[in-house]
Formats: sequence, C-alpha cells, structure tokens
Amino acid sequence: MNYNQCWLNYKNIDNYPDKDILSGLTICVKDCNGGIIRNAVEELTCALKKMLNINIKGRYLTDDTQIENVEQGIVLRLADEQLCQVSGEGYRISQSDKTVRIEAGTEQGLLYGCFDLIRRIGQGISVRGLNIYEKPKNNIRMLNHWDNMDGSIERGYSGRSFFFENDEILINERIKDYARLIASVGINATVINNVNVHGAATELITERYLGKLKILADIFAGYGIKLYLSANFAAPVEIGGLPVSDPLDRDVQNWWKDCVKKIYEYIPDFGGFLVKADSEGRPGPFTYGRTHADGANMLARALKPYGGLLIWRCFVYNCMQDWRDYKTDRAKAAYDNFIGLDGQFDDNVVLQIKNGPMDFQVREPVSPLFGGLRNTNMILEVQAAQEYTGQQIDVCYLIPMWKEVLDFETYAKKEGAKVADIVSGRAYHQTNCGMAAVANTGNDFNWTGHDLAAANLYGFGRLAWNTELTSSQIATEWIKLTFPHEDKVINTILEILMKSWPVYEKYTSPLGIGWMVNPSNHYGPNVDGYEYDRWGTYHRADRNGLGVDRSVKSGTGFAGQYNEPNASMYENPETCPEELLLFFHYVRYDYRLKSGKTLIQHIYDTHFEGADEVEKMVRDWEGLKGLIPEDVYERVLRRFYMQLENAKEWRDRINTYFYRKSGVKDEKGRTIY
Amino acid sequence: MNYNQCWLNYKNIDNYPDKDILSGLTICVKDCNGGIIRNAVEELTCALKKMLNINIKGRYLTDDTQIENVEQGIVLRLADEQLCQVSGEGYRISQSDKTVRIEAGTEQGLLYGCFDLIRRIGQGISVRGLNIYEKPKNNIRMLNHWDNMDGSIERGYSGRSFFFENDEILINERIKDYARLIASVGINATVINNVNVHGAATELITERYLGKLKILADIFAGYGIKLYLSANFAAPVEIGGLPVSDPLDRDVQNWWKDCVKKIYEYIPDFGGFLVKADSEGRPGPFTYGRTHADGANMLARALKPYGGLLIWRCFVYNCMQDWRDYKTDRAKAAYDNFIGLDGQFDDNVVLQIKNGPMDFQVREPVSPLFGGLRNTNMILEVQAAQEYTGQQIDVCYLIPMWKEVLDFETYAKKEGAKVADIVSGRAYHQTNCGMAAVANTGNDFNWTGHDLAAANLYGFGRLAWNTELTSSQIATEWIKLTFPHEDKVINTILEILMKSWPVYEKYTSPLGIGWMVNPSNHYGPNVDGYEYDRWGTYHRADRNGLGVDRSVKSGTGFAGQYNEPNASMYENPETCPEELLLFFHYVRYDYRLKSGKTLIQHIYDTHFEGADEVEKMVRDWEGLKGLIPEDVYERVLRRFYMQLENAKEWRDRINTYFYRKSGVKDEKGRTIY
Repeated sequence: MNYNQCWLNYKNIDNYPDKDILSGLTICVKDCNGGIIRNAVEELTCALKKMLNINIKGRYLTDDTQIENVEQGIVLRLADEQLCQVSGEGYRISQSDKTVRIEAGTEQGLLYGCFDLIRRIGQGISVRGLNIYEKPKNNIRMLNHWDNMDGSIERGYSGRSFFFENDEILINERIKDYARLIASVGINATVINNVNVHGAATELITERYLGKLKILADIFAGYGIKLYLSANFAAPVEIGGLPVSDPLDRDVQNWWKDCVKKIYEYIPDFGGFLVKADSEGRPGPFTYGRTHADGANMLARALKPYGGLLIWRCFVYNCMQDWRDYKTDRAKAAYDNFIGLDGQFDDNVVLQIKNGPMDFQVREPVSPLFGGLRNTNMILEVQAAQEYTGQQIDVCYLIPMWKEVLDFETYAKKEGAKVADIVSGRAYHQTNCGMAAVANTGNDFNWTGHDLAAANLYGFGRLAWNTELTSSQIATEWIKLTFPHEDKVINTILEILMKSWPVYEKYTSPLGIGWMVNPSNHYGPNVDGYEYDRWGTYHRADRNGLGVDRSVKSGTGFAGQYNEPNASMYENPETCPEELLLFFHYVRYDYRLKSGKTLIQHIYDTHFEGADEVEKMVRDWEGLKGLIPEDVYERVLRRFYMQLENAKEWRDRINTYFYRKSGVKDEKGRTIY
Repeated sequence: MNYNQCWLNYKNIDNYPDKDILSGLTICVKDCNGGIIRNAVEELTCALKKMLNINIKGRYLTDDTQIENVEQGIVLRLADEQLCQVSGEGYRISQSDKTVRIEAGTEQGLLYGCFDLIRRIGQGISVRGLNIYEKPKNNIRMLNHWDNMDGSIERGYSGRSFFFENDEILINERIKDYARLIASVGINATVINNVNVHGAATELITERYLGKLKILADIFAGYGIKLYLSANFAAPVEIGGLPVSDPLDRDVQNWWKDCVKKIYEYIPDFGGFLVKADSEGRPGPFTYGRTHADGANMLARALKPYGGLLIWRCFVYNCMQDWRDYKTDRAKAAYDNFIGLDGQFDDNVVLQIKNGPMDFQVREPVSPLFGGLRNTNMILEVQAAQEYTGQQIDVCYLIPMWKEVLDFETYAKKEGAKVADIVSGRAYHQTNCGMAAVANTGNDFNWTGHDLAAANLYGFGRLAWNTELTSSQIATEWIKLTFPHEDKVINTILEILMKSWPVYEKYTSPLGIGWMVNPSNHYGPNVDGYEYDRWGTYHRADRNGLGVDRSVKSGTGFAGQYNEPNASMYENPETCPEELLLFFHYVRYDYRLKSGKTLIQHIYDTHFEGADEVEKMVRDWEGLKGLIPEDVYERVLRRFYMQLENAKEWRDRINTYFYRKSGVKDEKGRTIY
C-alpha cells in the first residue's frame, strides 16, 4: 500500500484511562441493509485494536430489551429518531457504567458517532461521563475534485488522480480508504471529476462509464457519501449529436432526462450534477441567449424525479478584459450575473459561490452574493487545494480564513445573518445548502503533498460539520490524531499551523490586493504578472501608490454590492478594514495606517517579517527531530526549505518592485535590491 | 501539393527581351556523375517553360570543339578551373551572339550559375552583354533547423516540421523542393534537427535512422547541400551505455569514432555535427571539468578522417542567475567562456557565434568574440526565425540588421576587420568559416507562415553568398521573383520591408534594452516579464530611469570586451550609439538625447510612432488589393491586422509602464493608461 492513512493511522495510545469500558461491542440493528453499519463496526474494531490493543467482537441484537441490558462495551443502536433524540445524520453518545452507547436514527448517524468516539480515543480524551448530542450544521458537506480523466489534476499539488488514469476509472483499495478518510470528518458528498469537463469526461454520464461509477458509488454509499459528477453543459452537442444545447429546446431537455434516467438506473442514490457554465471558456446558456436560471432549472428538472441536486457555480466573469478599461470590475461579476435571478431557481438547484468575489486569493472580502441572495439555495465554496496559498509547498492552514468568512456578518436580516447562517440554511429555512471545498488530494503517499496540508482536508470536514469549532480546536484534534502526544510536538505544530496563513499573507501580496503571482502556475511572485492581462486582476501600482478604487463614489462601485453598514464601511478608506485596504482603494505610499506606519513601510516591514517568520518555523520544525517519525520529519523539512526560498523571493521581489517605484528607502535600512 | 514554391513559383514574364538567345540548351560534361547537373538542367527547363514559354531540350556534349561551336542557346560547361577562371562554387556567365554560357569548375558552380540566370530572367533583366564572374564570399552558408522529431519546431512559426513526425524521418517531394529553394540562393549546408537534442533525436546518429538520412542526404547532394546533424554531447551515456561522456575518456572517444565511421559508411559526404553544450541545461564538457576545446576537439578528431566539421555553439551562459546579483552579466558570458581558448581548437572545429551577446533581440551590439578570437574558425549565427522579432506575425525584414552586424568594424587588425571579413575567413586566412541562420520554415503552405517572411530566408542565402549586396537590392530581387512586376506592388512592398525592422524596434523595447517580452513564448509585451527571473535579462527600471550599466568604470565591465576605440565609445554614454544607450548605461528619464528629447519623451514618441506606422503599412497593403494574388493578399492582411493589435498593445503597455514609473506626462497629451 503506497500511501498512509493520515489521521486514521491509529497509532497506539498509551495509558488511555477508559479501556475497561470499551472492551465489548454490540450492534443493534433495525430495518437496515447494514452496509454502513458493517463499515462502522469494521472501523471501530480496527481502531480499538490499533490504538488500545482491545480485541472486540460484534454481537448483533435486534431485541430492545436485550439492548437495554448490555452491561459492558460499546453499543451501537439504530433507534427511531424520537427515541435517540437526534435526526438525520445526527447521533448521541452516552456513557454509563461499563457501556458507551452510540445511538442514531440513521446508519450515517451511527457511522459518524463511531468516528466521533474514535476521534476522542485517538486524542486520549476520556469518555467517562460523556453524554452528547451531535448533528451537522450543514446538510451538504462536499468535496470537489478537479481530477481529469487523463490522471492529471487541475491545480493538484499531491501527485496524480486516484480516480482516473488514461480515460479510465480506477477501482482499488485506495477508493475505500479515501471514503473512510472523508467520512471520518463528516463529508457526505463528492464530485470526482474536474468542473472543466473536457474530452472523455463529458462521457462520464453515459453507459461508457456508468458500470464502473456504480462500483465507486457503492463504495461511497457504504460511508454515507453521495457521488456527484461535473457535467458538460454542451454534452447534448458534443456527445448527443444534437445541433444545440439550448436549455429551452425540447430535444435538449429530453436528452438530459434520458441521460439522468440511465444514471439512476445504475446509481439509485446518485447525488446530482455540478456545472461550471459560461465561465472561462466553458459553454453555457449565454450561448443561446438564455439565463443561468434557464440553464440550471432545465438540468434540475431532469434530476428532480430522483431526488438529485443541480449545483451551479457562480464563478462567471468576463475573462477577456482589457487592462486599459478601468470601469469593468471582475469583482462585481458574480453578483451582477446572479442577483437578478434570485427566486427564479428550482428548489433542487443550489448555487455554489466562492468565498470571495475574485478567486481564492490569500485575502479577499466575502462575496456579496452572501447577503444578497435571499431566495436561493447556496453552497459556500472554499479551496483546500492551495492554488494561491502556497501550493502545498508553503504551509498554509486555511481554517482560520474560512472561519472569518463564515463569521462575516452580512446584515441580510434585521436580527443578523452571518455567512454561516446563510449557507447552513438557517437564515432562510432551506435544506439544500452547505459547504464545498476544492480537494487538495492526490495519489501522493501522504495524500496531500505536504503532510501539514492534511489539516486542511481534515479541518474542512470538521468545520463543515460544525462551523462553531475554533481553528485551534480543529488543529489540535488533527495534530493529536496524526502525531505523537508530546507537548512539544503538539505545541510546535499548533503554533506553526495557526500562524501559517498570516505569515503567508505577510510575504505575498499586501493588504488584500492579491494576484501578484506568476501567471498560469500561480506559484511564486510576479508583481506585474497579471497587471496587463485579460483576467481582470490589477493592482494599478504607480510611483505614488497602488490599489484598485472599488468605491461607489469614484471607483468601480463594487463596495455598493454589500448591505449597509458594510457598504459604507468599505466605501471609506478610513473605515475599510486595513487588511482589505488595497482591494477597495487606491492608496498613496505615504498614507498612514492605523499603526502609524506609512503604507510603503508597512509593505517593507511585513515582507521582512514574513520571511523571518518562515525561518523561525523551519527552526521550530527542526526542533522536532527525533520526536516524530523520521519520514514525516524529512518530508516536511524539505518543503520548509522550499518555502523559505519562496518567502525570500517574495520578500525581495515585492520590496524591490515597490522601492523602485516609490523611491522610498526602508526606514530600517535593510537590503532591498 | 499543399505548398507553394515561394520565389521559385516561376510566373510568366511578359515581354522579356532576350527570348531569342535562350531557346536552346547544351550541356557540356566532363568527369562528373551528373546528379547536380541533371537537377540544374531540370530547373532551367522548368523555369524557361514557365517564365518564357520556351521549350528547351538538353543536348549532352563532351567534345570541347563541339561546345565552342554551339551557336544558339544556353551552354552549361563544366570546365577546369583555369579555363573558366572561377574556383570552387564560383561560376561565370557570359553572353555573345545567340548564346549564354554558364561555366564553372564544379557542378555546384554550374547549378548556382543556372539559378543566377533564372533570377535575372525572373526579374525581367536582360542578359545581353552579360559577362560576370561570381563566387561566394563565405564558404559555409548554412541553415539550422530547430525541428524536433515529434514534428514540432522550437521557435517555429510556420507550422510543423517537414523533416520529422512521430520520431520518424519524412521523405517526400517537399524535401526536394526544400533543397531547390535553399540551393537557389546558395545555401550549401543544413542541420535538420534542433540543437536541443532530446529523446529519439539523440539516436539520429545511429543505424536506427541512417538509412533514411542517407536518402535525405542524397537529395540534398543533388543540390550541393551537405547534411549536418545536431548531436547530443551526452550520447555516449544516453544511448551508448557508457558511464560518462568525458571527452578525455578513451572509451568515449572510441564510441564517437565508431559512431562517425558508421555515419560515413552511409553518407560519404556527411557535413558534420553541430553541438550546443553546457548551455541552457544541455550537457557538455563542464560536467567532467573539461574545457570546450577538449569537448569540441574530441568530436572533431572523430570527424577529421572523413573531412567532417565540428560546429560548436558559443551560446554558453549561466541561466540560473539571481536577479539580485548586479555583477554577473550574461552579455559577458560567451566572451569569457571562449576567449581564453583561442588557438586551442582543431582546424576542423568551427565556433558558431550569435550576432549579439544576448539572444537575437531586436537590437544588440555585436558579439565581442568577433574581433576577439583571432586563431579560431568562426560562423556568424543569425536567426531568420523571428523569435524576438515578431514571430512571423509582425513583418520584420532582417537583412538590414544582419548587414549592420557584417559591417561592424571590430578593429581587430590595424587595417581594419569588419565582421564580414572575419566570418568570411578573409581576415585570418581561414576556410572553415561562414554564416548560419536559424531557419524560419515549416510545413505551412507558404513555408514561412508570413508570406513576407520568405524575404528573410531568401535574403539570408543571398547575403551569405555575397555580403556586399544591399538590403534593398536583396528585397527588390525577392519582390520581383515573388510578386507581379507592377511598380506600385514593388515599391509598396519594398517600403514595407525596408521600414519593418525600425518600426518593430520602435514599438517594442527601447534603445537596445531588449527582453520586455512575455516569458516562454517571447511574443507580445511584458516589461517585467524577465526582470526578476533567472535568465540574466534585466532592464533595472525604477522611478528615475532605466538601463543596465555595462561600463568598465561603474558597471559590469562588458564594454571592455571590445577593442579600442569601440570599448571607449560604448563606455561613455555621450559617445555610445543611442540605439544601444540602455544596453550599456543606466539613464535617467530626463536625460536629453541628441534629438533634444528627454529619454521618457523619446520612449513615448517612438511607441506612438511605431503603432502609427503599422497602421500606415496596413493601409498601404490594402492598396495592393487586386494587384497581387488574392490568397497572398488575404493571408498577409490577416497577419497585418494581428500585427496592428500587437503594436498597440506594445505601445500602451510600454508607455503605461513608464508613465506609472516616471510620473512624467506625454508632452503631446496622447492617451497613456
């Protein structure tokens, strides 16, 4: 097996206090096919054996009295919802005397309960006195894999696809381990192919692949995960032989109905489609003068009879912009394209909205569609793949960024509506809502290229399940499940993770302006790389200052897409949060920030600090030698060395660029080239 | 046949005055296998039929008296050198009464004489009273094709390779037409594979390919062209199974000897090898701590017994530079690497030296190796492929640039030594010298992508034959051979060609600084594209000025690589030719040029002018509608529209970049973004 199990490695837990009450296992089953439960039992058995050296044996009971009378061990009980007081995917765990009871109304609930118990044991947490009810905050907790059928992964930094190779679907033991990994943190949906659907991938929805997809879907189903596919809006033309893909064309509608019917014959619990339409060259309804509502609803109606969802991405903008045009603003595009359609989407359509209005930069404001749309199902899309945040060479723990997004107050309702309230469905009483992450996995030994990047995969699942967990709670969980329980190990890695995003932000583009990366590969600095390009990604730096004026008064007007008082807050440079200052305003180099520093000095200082802090991280990591497994230590160390080079290159390029432009010397006389 | 014949299309020449004296053909043969002569006769027959509708028939005579007594028609006479008074590839053409005599001491000479005659007729020039002796100024007149064996062409802008596809050698009628084309302008050597030798191309020198290469070589030989191959210095390791490629290793030496022996068994007139070693990642003698002389001589000694040449490129520099390093200078690298080896190369080694010290930029000083090396065979390398000069989208007639290089006075000898004197071998009495051009051909219908780019292929051959021809002479020849003989057509195209290089220079990077192109593809503007990169290609622009200080006094010292008085001329900004000012000096934006303009205003003016002049070119071309074949008109027009877009993009990016940096407004108030 050429891969590890990440946080499911189940290392031995010394001196666990509650071994005595865990040494039996009883399964209580009522009306279920048992696939998920079998997997849950298998997982518990394996975990307890490896972590506590307890050999347990399942007993299957169906009689309620017998179940009540179990005197020792773990009881899994599939009860009706009233009895166990949790619904859907929720579960209850309670301990009394020598038993730990996991109760749920569904098999998924039991599975999640088992993983919860394993997580506690893996962290060495006692289960004595435990009595908790847990249910997910978000119904949809999804991964988007940008895997291509040739085996490559778009923006993949962890090797090649484990789903595809040579236009074929791979079926092997890694698929099951993948399902275990993501189910263990509560993920219940996955899109296995790239949203940019090309070539053979267009045919994934046909019988050419459905047989193998069914095998995948069945493995996933055993872990409560629904299979979704990215679909090509132009499929009726490209593989259906129709002259158009017009969503109002009867033949097109029927083509999709037949297509969906066939899919559900193979995969009765198929999740649905994810569609990137009219975006970056992808085909869509605009081709036929139709709206995105026309396009999405047409597909949704084909899926509706089977309970399928249609997930439609809002990443729609003009990618043939002229840099000479100061009025068109890519940041405004998603809102402009979708706000007028609010209320026009069918109830099984879900709009998938990236966290920010641009594209997964290290710092962006929250998309104003959150707080704008009120009658539309929404999924928040974040990117665990570190496209613009270090590409799994530089460490960048992203949960704090996602937390900020979830905690953003949109003022969409009088009583308040944070993004977390909206994407959970709480704000508008919706059910088809949730969170999606672009996955950061590949067939590398450690799944995520950088061992520490696994914290983002783990963290996404945990956060999507419970948006109220803190970043450091999640990080601590992951560290304890992954590394030896030594204080120095835990504290060092926790400190590295928690400061990694701020440090990355410091040495890259300043104050929310983004985009100063090498075009195409998006790694490493290139201040003007996107400045004169067609992508709508500008910094407008000149000899006096930099930044994009997005105010209503004198700029592109993007600030006005927010509800008050956010709109006014962003409109005014004095009230605009400083970390977003250059996103919203053109600011002179001699502008004084609240720290009392000029903008240019702030740029110099943060860049020197950022690189220095990476040096400290490397030293801290080197302090772990001998305390953690050698292979992990070495793998991460090599990445740290690369990160340090990258940080220095960023520091020097950014500082030199702005020194050459501003002519202002560093107050502290440090080297600028 | 999916291609045209360029300047060998042989269109009908109306009212040609001397039809009467051309209507017979007699061949006089003495001691020759006749392959080249057969081709010469075939060419003449075809040309006279098409151009003048004369049907001629060859008579083969061997008796001198008979030959003397021929009374009408063209006489081809292979005479001994003394008799015809020309040596080697030279020829004599003389007219008297009703005969035109072409005499030469070699078959090649006769072939070139025939093409000369055809060229005169094709231009409508009378042959009455003709009596000329012609011989080439340069012995080696070579093309370098950067064709890869997968069929792609590195820096190819004219379609795919007509030599290779799918790791196989192509043999078809186009090969013969290629040979006719290049022989018609005097080219006598060709390297068919890329100097970056990868994969299957490493095996071109083995029996895997020698059978097919022999067929190619035989076709070429019929036109006096020698086949050369680019060789991989690491071949002994990569395909020979040896542990090293060390040039002083006996096994390596023997491996190459065996390899060369085998090649000559197949191809007795094989030309030799071209080698790019220790350059941009290519392997070379440095790997083993050996010198370039060690490496080149070892290969040359394997070739020596068969009369083969070893051509060794001087394009050696550190391509892993740090932009923060202001001392290392790529411009100095070739000189520094080779000057100390002068005199150490065997007499069948030829150093191939790019015209400038950087890499085929639109404007560079001449390489100081010309004038530096005195005891080494040299070939001047120019690039017909328009890598940095418009990529055969933008028109850029390069003969004027090459003429400037050839006319450059190196002061290597008291009596003077221009580059043309050095590369011809005149200066130091050498024979293995000449010129090479990176070819601009591909399998496009018109061979060169842009129809007007054929003038560079034509012109390279003509110039290499006779470096004293002027640019406009060459252009006029080519135009008359290619287009209808209407004054408006000739004058318009001549004007376009003659101003195309200055215009291209105007709208691209200013005053010799170069490199402001998009990295990798090298088309279109990107001022900072190479500024913070590893390639040693910097402009050092800041808010006060730009340029690289290459003076001895305060800069990298490159200026000191020239002989006096050139060194002093470049050293001083006041005497440095202004077109190279920024190559040699960092200059403030407010510096006054000799025109009285400031540097910044000069940048603005030239960029507005450059784009305006392209607009005028387009209008001028549009004036040719109906006067030239429609397909040519349309092909070129489409390219002109693309050039115009490119010129505007350059204009706006360069002007905006320097306006943002300098803060100086355009005096004329034109739009800068």
